Amino acid sequence: VPFPHLLHPGQSHPLLKQWNNGPSIKAHQLMFPIFVSDRTGVKEQIGSLPDHYRWGVDRLDELLDPLVALGLRSVLLFGVISDEKKKDRTASFADKDDSPVPKALRRLRERYPSLLLATDICLCGYTSTGHCCILCENKAKQGILHIENQASIERLAQIALSYAQAGAHMVAPSDMMDGRVGAIKYLLRSAGLESRVPVMSYTAKFASVYYGPFRDAACSGMSFGDRSSYQLGVGSRELALRALARDVAEGADFVMVKPGGPYLDIVRDVRERVNVPVAIYQVSGEYAMLYHAAQAGAFGLKEAVLESLVCAQRAGASIFITYFTPLLLQALAQNK
Amino acid sequence: VPFPHLLHPGQSHPLLKQWNNGPSIKAHQLMFPIFVSDRTGVKEQIGSLPDHYRWGVDRLDELLDPLVALGLRSVLLFGVISDEKKKDRTASFADKDDSPVPKALRRLRERYPSLLLATDICLCGYTSTGHCCILCENKAKQGILHIENQASIERLAQIALSYAQAGAHMVAPSDMMDGRVGAIKYLLRSAGLESRVPVMSYTAKFASVYYGPFRDAACSGMSFGDRSSYQLGVGSRELALRALARDVAEGADFVMVKPGGPYLDIVRDVRERVNVPVAIYQVSGEYAMLYHAAQAGAFGLKEAVLESLVCAQRAGASIFITYFTPLLLQALAQNK
Amino acid sequence: VPFPHLLHPGQSHPLLKQWNNGPSIKAHQLMFPIFVSDRTGVKEQIGSLPDHYRWGVDRLDELLDPLVALGLRSVLLFGVISDEKKKDRTASFADKDDSPVPKALRRLRERYPSLLLATDICLCGYTSTGHCCILCENKAKQGILHIENQASIERLAQIALSYAQAGAHMVAPSDMMDGRVGAIKYLLRSAGLESRVPVMSYTAKFASVYYGPFRDAACSGMSFGDRSSYQLGVGSRELALRALARDVAEGADFVMVKPGGPYLDIVRDVRERVNVPVAIYQVSGEYAMLYHAAQAGAFGLKEAVLESLVCAQRAGASIFITYFTPLLLQALAQNK
Amino acid sequence: VPFPHLLHPGQSHPLLKQWNNGPSIKAHQLMFPIFVSDRTGVKEQIGSLPDHYRWGVDRLDELLDPLVALGLRSVLLFGVISDEKKKDRTASFADKDDSPVPKALRRLRERYPSLLLATDICLCGYTSTGHCCILCENKAKQGILHIENQASIERLAQIALSYAQAGAHMVAPSDMMDGRVGAIKYLLRSAGLESRVPVMSYTAKFASVYYGPFRDAACSGMSFGDRSSYQLGVGSRELALRALARDVAEGADFVMVKPGGPYLDIVRDVRERVNVPVAIYQVSGEYAMLYHAAQAGAFGLKEAVLESLVCAQRAGASIFITYFTPLLLQALAQNK
Amino acid sequence: VPFPHLLHPGQSHPLLKQWNNGPSIKAHQLMFPIFVSDRTGVKEQIGSLPDHYRWGVDRLDELLDPLVALGLRSVLLFGVISDEKKKDRTASFADKDDSPVPKALRRLRERYPSLLLATDICLCGYTSTGHCCILCENKAKQGILHIENQASIERLAQIALSYAQAGAHMVAPSDMMDGRVGAIKYLLRSAGLESRVPVMSYTAKFASVYYGPFRDAACSGMSFGDRSSYQLGVGSRELALRALARDVAEGADFVMVKPGGPYLDIVRDVRERVNVPVAIYQVSGEYAMLYHAAQAGAFGLKEAVLESLVCAQRAGASIFITYFTPLLLQALAQNK
Amino acid sequence: VPFPHLLHPGQSHPLLKQWNNGPSIKAHQLMFPIFVSDRTGVKEQIGSLPDHYRWGVDRLDELLDPLVALGLRSVLLFGVISDEKKKDRTASFADKDDSPVPKALRRLRERYPSLLLATDICLCGYTSTGHCCILCENKAKQGILHIENQASIERLAQIALSYAQAGAHMVAPSDMMDGRVGAIKYLLRSAGLESRVPVMSYTAKFASVYYGPFRDAACSGMSFGDRSSYQLGVGSRELALRALARDVAEGADFVMVKPGGPYLDIVRDVRERVNVPVAIYQVSGEYAMLYHAAQAGAFGLKEAVLESLVCAQRAGASIFITYFTPLLLQALAQNK
Ligand SMILES: [Zn+2]
Ligand SMILES: [Zn+2]
Ligand SMILES: [Zn+2]
Ligand SMILES: [Zn+2]
Ligand SMILES: [Zn+2]
Ligand SMILES: [Zn+2]
Repeated sequence: VPFPHLLHPGQSHPLLKQWNNGPSIKAHQLMFPIFVSDRTGVKEQIGSLPDHYRWGVDRLDELLDPLVALGLRSVLLFGVISDEKKKDRTASFADKDDSPVPKALRRLRERYPSLLLATDICLCGYTSTGHCCILCENKAKQGILHIENQASIERLAQIALSYAQAGAHMVAPSDMMDGRVGAIKYLLRSAGLESRVPVMSYTAKFASVYYGPFRDAACSGMSFGDRSSYQLGVGSRELALRALARDVAEGADFVMVKPGGPYLDIVRDVRERVNVPVAIYQVSGEYAMLYHAAQAGAFGLKEAVLESLVCAQRAGASIFITYFTPLLLQALAQNK
Repeated sequence: VPFPHLLHPGQSHPLLKQWNNGPSIKAHQLMFPIFVSDRTGVKEQIGSLPDHYRWGVDRLDELLDPLVALGLRSVLLFGVISDEKKKDRTASFADKDDSPVPKALRRLRERYPSLLLATDICLCGYTSTGHCCILCENKAKQGILHIENQASIERLAQIALSYAQAGAHMVAPSDMMDGRVGAIKYLLRSAGLESRVPVMSYTAKFASVYYGPFRDAACSGMSFGDRSSYQLGVGSRELALRALARDVAEGADFVMVKPGGPYLDIVRDVRERVNVPVAIYQVSGEYAMLYHAAQAGAFGLKEAVLESLVCAQRAGASIFITYFTPLLLQALAQNK
Repeated sequence: VPFPHLLHPGQSHPLLKQWNNGPSIKAHQLMFPIFVSDRTGVKEQIGSLPDHYRWGVDRLDELLDPLVALGLRSVLLFGVISDEKKKDRTASFADKDDSPVPKALRRLRERYPSLLLATDICLCGYTSTGHCCILCENKAKQGILHIENQASIERLAQIALSYAQAGAHMVAPSDMMDGRVGAIKYLLRSAGLESRVPVMSYTAKFASVYYGPFRDAACSGMSFGDRSSYQLGVGSRELALRALARDVAEGADFVMVKPGGPYLDIVRDVRERVNVPVAIYQVSGEYAMLYHAAQAGAFGLKEAVLESLVCAQRAGASIFITYFTPLLLQALAQNK
Repeated sequence: VPFPHLLHPGQSHPLLKQWNNGPSIKAHQLMFPIFVSDRTGVKEQIGSLPDHYRWGVDRLDELLDPLVALGLRSVLLFGVISDEKKKDRTASFADKDDSPVPKALRRLRERYPSLLLATDICLCGYTSTGHCCILCENKAKQGILHIENQASIERLAQIALSYAQAGAHMVAPSDMMDGRVGAIKYLLRSAGLESRVPVMSYTAKFASVYYGPFRDAACSGMSFGDRSSYQLGVGSRELALRALARDVAEGADFVMVKPGGPYLDIVRDVRERVNVPVAIYQVSGEYAMLYHAAQAGAFGLKEAVLESLVCAQRAGASIFITYFTPLLLQALAQNK
Repeated sequence: VPFPHLLHPGQSHPLLKQWNNGPSIKAHQLMFPIFVSDRTGVKEQIGSLPDHYRWGVDRLDELLDPLVALGLRSVLLFGVISDEKKKDRTASFADKDDSPVPKALRRLRERYPSLLLATDICLCGYTSTGHCCILCENKAKQGILHIENQASIERLAQIALSYAQAGAHMVAPSDMMDGRVGAIKYLLRSAGLESRVPVMSYTAKFASVYYGPFRDAACSGMSFGDRSSYQLGVGSRELALRALARDVAEGADFVMVKPGGPYLDIVRDVRERVNVPVAIYQVSGEYAMLYHAAQAGAFGLKEAVLESLVCAQRAGASIFITYFTPLLLQALAQNK
Repeated sequence: VPFPHLLHPGQSHPLLKQWNNGPSIKAHQLMFPIFVSDRTGVKEQIGSLPDHYRWGVDRLDELLDPLVALGLRSVLLFGVISDEKKKDRTASFADKDDSPVPKALRRLRERYPSLLLATDICLCGYTSTGHCCILCENKAKQGILHIENQASIERLAQIALSYAQAGAHMVAPSDMMDGRVGAIKYLLRSAGLESRVPVMSYTAKFASVYYGPFRDAACSGMSFGDRSSYQLGVGSRELALRALARDVAEGADFVMVKPGGPYLDIVRDVRERVNVPVAIYQVSGEYAMLYHAAQAGAFGLKEAVLESLVCAQRAGASIFITYFTPLLLQALAQNK
């Protein structure tokens, strides 16, 4: 019985191994999501996301100084509004001067000149409904979720422009409305910022059960309805690829798949179809799974987290948005 | 700003939704892994795999009667040898008449005539070293792991033939030696069984940290060395695809990716390249992650497990080997 | 001589067969083309399309009641104008209140609430020239076919909007002008219907000899020139794929290949490139070939028609627009 | 509304048209199937294949002289045995010296030195069962169709070698047994003919209803059972692609899809995967459909036949085996 | 040891060879770049491009009469301005009536009615900076290269329209600004020329060292900065494919890869992704390499040039823009 | 006019640039071809390959010491026989103990323990005919080139085994006979070396005019005939891909495309189809083109050579066999 396909000879010499090795994970590929509170002086434990906190802008240095020293190169900022009175139908507080994200941008831009500042762009943290869009008020009163798509994308574009003007190097719309990338690009262009502020689109954002803990972190539960009417069905490869075509046609400079780990086939699909870098967002439920299984002794946490990123890189992602960033920065620093 | 790509209109009528829906998970796609003990009368809790047991052949009815009633269509049998004295260099006990797998095959073939009986084919449960292959004895004494590939694949083929003759409908080699699918096919052909007993190959079996709990279940820890010299490096898309080319060239009728969930990009890659059905093995570490995170309240277990299978199906798998089979059979029965 | 690739073992058990089977044709995948006359009370035999008729709106129940009872889920409406005086350069009668399609839409919407109503959108049934577009009047006088593309697509969009407002669930432009999908989408959006009325585009409509009998059915022969200047050359894979790119960029929600059977390579090409459902139109010449060859005893009609649809499904189509719908509904009902 | 994708400007000048045109059909791409009778002096009308005949070897000049003059470059020979007594279990008459195909090869090789002579290789014309393989005699007595695959491919290889030695330039096995291409290659190599006699494999031969008339032509009806156990299911893209992988792995130099027209998606699939030329066999049912629909006035025969070949070429075929070869040779000669 | 893949049998007969042959290079695929001077009566040797000249419009017949007689079908015109005073920030002389390109268009349109006239569209030959775009004047004074993209593409579109109105059959923008194809299309459409004047886009134009001699030919050296901020990095497959997506989305009718020979992988990539014809520009450095190596005796010039074009055709190009056009026309004429 | 596809924003920050950058060329990717003479003490200038020499084994240190110091990691050895009397029909001197390659292997293995030693495997340097294979003696006398394929591959396998036993880490057959990779693998396996000595196959070796100078270097001109009957036609993408399928099916561990630069489309094609590393051989004619054009002032040599390798890497090659290795090692050392 002949069996010509042998995997060993091609790795029989140190140089051949080197020729067969892919790249290893680098610190500059990590992007750290940060929850910035509208409250001063706080460092609030997020119950469902062990070891993570909501931070007052004035305490961000405490969080970031050691991470930047370890090689952190980029962050993704989420604003968290604890005061329900600041929330309304059109998310008007999102881009106020004293809203947490603009404040944080000004602070971080000054303190960490080489840190890339990306901001999540969505309405859900600032709307009274907790939805990612502007809803028809009359229908909402009847408990019907009717999206005002055009009004929503215009509002999202305003916020994106405000954040860009406040210092964001990148804006990352997570709302999943049709046309929001194009609307943001259009407004950036009107302001002469079209070549300076790229858009990373949450392109394939699925209506997953793995987001549970996040809502706790971002204080963004919904008052009624759910997000499945604008996020993608978990089995919908076709819709994900149409959303990709949509975002690329609207001008996305970076695309993201969220959740990451359980959707690596979509990462591969995306990577085969576009030529912009692909990010994954390792969501809170993934964090919980790795964390709690390691706690229960199923495997070592560091090894399992590293495997999860190597898997994402194998699938075609090159940017990793993960709550494990601090753990990873330390692990990578030790391996040097 | 025009934005032509709208995801909603194509789903604006019940018939259009139907036209856009993919298939849902069916009970017949589930394959249940069973650990069959060499001890009579036992039902031993597997510590690291909550709700799972090692079963004596004489108590398998207790496990299977309710599952078959719920629609179980196939099982994957693993033999577990508690008596270390039965283990030797060449795994000679594996295909003895009173070895657990042949005994179970005879029992199940009789009691469940329409249940598809697949058997894992490997040496690790029966070798004194705990390795999946025959090792060079002299080198092993020096602590060097030197695989005797030819001897190993001949032994694996003998076991596969024995199991086929004892009633297995399918044999599933998990050892990752070069040439074992071809060797099995050759021996099956000599015995006139080549058209009756297909081979499901563990084609893309990665050296993952997610196997931890399994070793406890199968009592197959290694005495020295590890399996990384014959399993695939976790980042090795290239090697996985070469292993796929190898197995298909040797005649595999079904191929498997293991672990499943964190390797869905590989499932997609495999699905694009071959035209045999693709299985995933949702391994013990995946079980642990879903189980413990649900315990910790991150999400509902049933919802998360269903999402994990829908994801696998989206990636291109159509056969799911999972410890959650009992949970899923119940969930699917309720949805009917 | 080893020959590893065996097709039999993978199908040696009933469950394995099930694992290898693709889906069968379902009644809900059929769309039935109906010719609606501007004349009341008629049921006119279409000479070249045996067993098919032009129907007065008031007699549609007679046609549809039994088909809906058999499981018909969708129809595609064509208006047929017998009175040449109603035809003019701009197809002005197409969307008049008493034009056959709006009248039929109102009737069917009322009588069959769950039937999906799609309407063909074209000018050729309503123009004095019989062409699918508005022609330059001066050039036409000289016998030169000069398309006024912009005027044509605006007119097509008006008709599509009218039909949508009259109750169409879907509009299907068959004219092959550049920009008509975009123009329709634009007008639907202005009227707030963009999310409720999808567009199924005749994307790859070839200038085939197989349309012969259709013209008789639709009374849409041309007074001069032919359609080869706007339909695709039969050998033009490149143009078909550019037309696909065009329609998808303009926002098509469903795409169609026409004719179906002899263009299944194009169906495969389309299916590989887009993620919207793909329809085929089994045209009148295909109907004639199957019908007459069966009459001549070459094969059984039902078997041959079923094979033709199974072929189309294998190629990647999931929606079948066919004159054999009644025959198929009966065949599928018997197989249940 | 912008619509950038215009199909017209790229064809606005004669040179641009030339740059966009693909190749036209050439006479050298046609291969003409000929039924050679075991009877001398005959020219027997084939009832179900209008205008075609079974020819005695001594009357082949009458058929071929005018066609060769028109540019015919290749033929595909089928032997037809009218005398049932010459048929047996192992098709022993197939390669006898006075069997029609060897006789025809000797005659044609002499008279038409530049004509490529291909021969169909199968058992069905010579077995008493009418099956394409050697069946187990005992099981056949019980009405069970049990293929003796090894014996069958050895017999097929003998016949192929005999025909090659009698002058065939190419052998074309149509039986669909596993391993027959490899077996033929092996025997050709033993005889030093491996580089001189290529194999064109009937790779994707489907169990189609469109073969009806052929059986009449070749006198090869079956005494019991049908061919669906060795031909491909009509919806089986996966099996067709596995058969392709099989034949290419065994060394096929040319591959064929049969039937042609309704399986053009498979032609496209094949063309994308292999780098050998791809043939289609336009079968008797396709002939019947085109012929009878043209007779009924649905379209012109010549135009429809030409469209069918242009479609096949668009799909990726470059060799056309068709009963319309005489009609096409005349049409192409006129177009020069 | 079996080795089934033999390359010989498939070519063992003259007809089989013909079936395996691809098309040969044809004269109509060649496009000849011509440098048209603003000076009358000149034929100036271009130092770095042996055997090539800058021609006065009044002496073009001398160059073209013999080439058209040999079968030349298309030219690509470059204007060369020797008088630096005619150059300014906005390239205003480019489309003046007495600018070389419009003058040449009028002359050639008259003398060679069937010759396709394509014109390079760029600013670099007419700007005082020598850059391909309009630069911000203030920043330029500081030595900073800041592109005014919007102004640049509007100017390029004006020039393209002027040339189209002066008789160009095709315009070929080589500047690499974002949006220029769309801007040209928009202006052509305003003038009713959208269906008559296609755009061949320099889509994948790399910042290569192989352009050296060209700048001498076109007198277009830059006063400061270099073109690497708007041409593609030589290793940037991703950017090239994004530029392709951009140009196709803007409506390019033909696309070009430049340089040709060392970028054939990009030609293959482009060919796989779009369905418009693909051109390569065999640049001056390629000319120099072939010319000087042949001079040094490394190989024959004609053989090497022919191989270079056969390579480009194999990669998927069908249009060859080359300074070797005269040599090739002669070679092809001799081979007839 | 909107133009969403902008290439600039995605590179507007240093980190974004890093995210978009591909890998740079590393010294370990270079493989240096060395001509080893059968004469002692020589360093003979190769006329047509400026700056390159044929070296006596005893002078190799002189060549390699400085290169290894600069980071050279691998060499490819060619034996050069100056004494025509040592050449015969079967290349018997190739693996004699005092043949240059075995001698060099022993020397280099000792002096440079970490240098990877690859050896070209062919007959042409050792046959009296100068052909890469054993020819039929009788036919050769008649001037007919008739390859004895089986004898040739057996001889090549013997030589490969000898070289492996003399210390080669890798063998690289360049002869293009069918089955030689399989024959070498078979013999290596018999000797227990199958896992230690990989095969790098000259898979896509074209019959190019760019080899001219090489023959001078290797003293391997042919006495009659040429190599086009076993090397690939320059336009034959199909044959190249079939040769790739052949070599991979026979077990090649690395594949090579030769020449490199003008065949980068084939590199891309190969890279898309296989998962082994891909090498290019930048041949002597490419060396001549770059060298002489730089001499003539068309561009800088170092810049042009670097561009040529970056192009090859972009196309998918990761190993570069090039005569410019010394120049590149210096350039890379300076860039550090
Ligand atoms: Zn949100
Ligand atoms: Zn094992
Ligand atoms: Zn029409
Ligand atoms: Zn047969
Ligand atoms: Zn320029
Ligand atoms: Zn050689």
